[in-house]
Amino acid sequence: MTSNVEFDLLKSAITKDSTVFPNANVLIWIKERRDQIQASIKQIPLESMQHWNIEKKTQNIKHESGLFFSIEGIHVQTNWGKVKEWDQPIINQPEIGFLGFIAKKFNGVLHFLAQAKIEPGNINIVQISPTLQATKSNYSQVHRGKRPRYLEYFNGERYTHLLLDQLQSEQGARFLRKRNRNIIVELPQGEYIDDHQDFIWLTIGQLKELMRLDNIINMDTRTVISGISYGSYLADPLKAITVLAPTNKEPNLMLQSALNSQYAYQDFRSILSWITNLKSTYDLSVDRIALKQVSQWFESDGEICRVDGRYFSVIGVSSSIGNREVASWDQPMIKPAQEGLLAFIVRPINGVYHFLVQAKLEAGNFDIIELAPTVQCLTGNYRTGLNEYSVPFINDILSAPKKSILIDAMQSEEGGRFFKEQNRNMIIEVGESFPLKVDGNYCWMTLNQILRLIEFNNYLNISARSLISAIIFN
Amino acid sequence: MTSNVEFDLLKSAITKDSTVFPNANVLIWIKERRDQIQASIKQIPLESMQHWNIEKKTQNIKHESGLFFSIEGIHVQTNWGKVKEWDQPIINQPEIGFLGFIAKKFNGVLHFLAQAKIEPGNINIVQISPTLQATKSNYSQVHRGKRPRYLEYFNGERYTHLLLDQLQSEQGARFLRKRNRNIIVELPQGEYIDDHQDFIWLTIGQLKELMRLDNIINMDTRTVISGISYGSYLADPLKAITVLAPTNKEPNLMLQSALNSQYAYQDFRSILSWITNLKSTYDLSVDRIALKQVSQWFESDGEICRVDGRYFSVIGVSSSIGNREVASWDQPMIKPAQEGLLAFIVRPINGVYHFLVQAKLEAGNFDIIELAPTVQCLTGNYRTGLNEYSVPFINDILSAPKKSILIDAMQSEEGGRFFKEQNRNMIIEVGESFPLKVDGNYCWMTLNQILRLIEFNNYLNISARSLISAIIFN
Repeated sequence: MTSNVEFDLLKSAITKDSTVFPNANVLIWIKERRDQIQASIKQIPLESMQHWNIEKKTQNIKHESGLFFSIEGIHVQTNWGKVKEWDQPIINQPEIGFLGFIAKKFNGVLHFLAQAKIEPGNINIVQISPTLQATKSNYSQVHRGKRPRYLEYFNGERYTHLLLDQLQSEQGARFLRKRNRNIIVELPQGEYIDDHQDFIWLTIGQLKELMRLDNIINMDTRTVISGISYGSYLADPLKAITVLAPTNKEPNLMLQSALNSQYAYQDFRSILSWITNLKSTYDLSVDRIALKQVSQWFESDGEICRVDGRYFSVIGVSSSIGNREVASWDQPMIKPAQEGLLAFIVRPINGVYHFLVQAKLEAGNFDIIELAPTVQCLTGNYRTGLNEYSVPFINDILSAPKKSILIDAMQSEEGGRFFKEQNRNMIIEVGESFPLKVDGNYCWMTLNQILRLIEFNNYLNISARSLISAIIFN
Repeated sequence: MTSNVEFDLLKSAITKDSTVFPNANVLIWIKERRDQIQASIKQIPLESMQHWNIEKKTQNIKHESGLFFSIEGIHVQTNWGKVKEWDQPIINQPEIGFLGFIAKKFNGVLHFLAQAKIEPGNINIVQISPTLQATKSNYSQVHRGKRPRYLEYFNGERYTHLLLDQLQSEQGARFLRKRNRNIIVELPQGEYIDDHQDFIWLTIGQLKELMRLDNIINMDTRTVISGISYGSYLADPLKAITVLAPTNKEPNLMLQSALNSQYAYQDFRSILSWITNLKSTYDLSVDRIALKQVSQWFESDGEICRVDGRYFSVIGVSSSIGNREVASWDQPMIKPAQEGLLAFIVRPINGVYHFLVQAKLEAGNFDIIELAPTVQCLTGNYRTGLNEYSVPFINDILSAPKKSILIDAMQSEEGGRFFKEQNRNMIIEVGESFPLKVDGNYCWMTLNQILRLIEFNNYLNISARSLISAIIFN
């Protein structure tokens, strides 16, 4: 890994505004894009969906082409946690899709080609997505859709410089072992891309600034951004800090955490061992079953819900979107029972921020456990007393004084599968009185250590990555 | 990762003999251990095995306790390679076992506590194994066996320093997603372990010297040794070489390859992208089926074979082993149709050895593909003309001049499951006339890059690791 690339990425991350497309214009541009289209999105009964069938024998929900995805059931057994066995509906989408950004230097700073993307599940209809967001069914054009714009920069047809290329997991509680290819390619010097009204060039720093706002940057953008490992292997991180952030009298705690592992609370070997031990201790057995066999869930009024109304429901959605050309289609979606909370606690240890990372087992995980935020309550009721169990560290998050809140915004799950699902994303700083000793499924890590794990498949879950992407370095 | 630990491990690896237990005595000790026991190991019909049942409905072979492992069938579909769909028997053993060494410094050099271990499938009955080699059924003592010796150093009961702790895969063509926990712990200074006639202390260098010989070091030892990443993160690899190997006028090509990534043919980012692309392109779908439904395989004369006699058969084995206390038991085992060949080609590029690594899909792989040696022919007939397809690079291996052969020995598969299975392990050096451009499922990597991947789960397959473990550094 050449440190030049990491230096370029870090420089883009600390560039918080740009004359190429200034922050002040971005919200106006999104509003314009939204105003240009007419969208009608409404819930319909599952059995009324055009081109989707409810299979007689199983009641599984499938597209008539056999493509895209299906809604099926799983039976789960594990020795993890308090609930050892359950059934649930799950999205089965075995294809690996592309989530890709094209990058290009303007005035020596990397800018990313961001798209104003319409999805039926999006809060506000339009959110900022990567340059390319395509399932295999999309990009192999097996259906009637158009060829995705800019596909040729990602599939090897056009020559580019590779900046990042990782397989990353989707929501383990909703998808069965789903992964996407997170990829960033840089245009060769001197090459240009024609302007298009739905695309603008933004620095990583600008994308991070926009993540301060609710529901502007979509989940796919956040997961790609989270995978960038700024300078894990830079020879001299303190020098990099001085070069990149000279206005800070002292190196910023978050930047130090990203670049520096020499002050880590525990070494990387111990972190890998902690993960190995958990994977050796806990079992996860998942059997695919027919949707109609899923116990505790039932269909009523054209949607599928849990008997107690908790977690989520599977609904039918009919969408009609466009300006001149109007696209209309039906599809099943996941609708959350309520909003959730994703939060990291960070604490300075030896003068460097450490993140309190949680190991978490979810039914759709590829490899038993993935690393999650300190608190991950997805559409479960997290207020004490209203949940079936108390959530560790929840009070540290909810009662944090304002000055300790580093990040706080509502962020959406992916709008192609999840219907208006948003979760509160928070990062909270705690002081040195916060106990260092934590339970066996928690671990203190520097951001550098987290980013080193992200490089490899299926270590950090999508909730953790969503929070990591929002971190601002100075 | 502190570089001290890596320095200690590298020092042990280049220490090729020791006064603690000299090489000259090791073969004598193994012979003594072997002579002390009486062993009777014979093939019996599967249906005659005591305590094992052939399930009526499925013909799956299971222990009556439900523990240990079972022989089942799988139906495989993939878009990889020439054969897109097949059935085969497979070992299903969902538990993660321990393969663990205790290490201790003698005269400032790390020595590993090696065991003379008896397994029914071992060629020569006794081979050198790790300190602890235990399945979960063993170490949780759910059956009538004794508690494994030294378990307390690995399960947290005794305090130790952790040197390595990784999940690593077993044979993907034989096991369904099986993994073991490869672990090395160092005794705290001043602590001692009582001598036992079945255990001796050897340096990593001594273990490597013994791998020059046929079938002395068992597979479990080899996989643990392969996971040690000597100095991937040492600040100054060339300095380390000078300190550790001062007798070499020029730094040795293999040691440079292990320590140095700055002269790598391609950067680590590109290697991760190569793997990501293959995992995104190729599908592997494995359905568990009843053994009796496995097409092309049949039972005859108390064993299960393929109709054409190829690959392997499933046999019953009755063992009676011991001196004073005699242990007798029956179990199913895998018997290979013939011996195979595992070989890496290495080539100097920019003055540093690079390994020609092959991406390979096998039915039992945890994550679609794993990285294999340049040539991996397990019990397939690899001589040109006698196989169903020609094997790339096979002639470069088989016709290599003697001076180009860096490694050449017969090594056994694990003797607890595989009946006298041995494969020829080779590393062949080719010159700079060997073409650098290779097919898309091959990639040139330094040893440093390979060792960096091994740290994480399920990147290097067990055949590749077997070869990596045998590398001698100067």
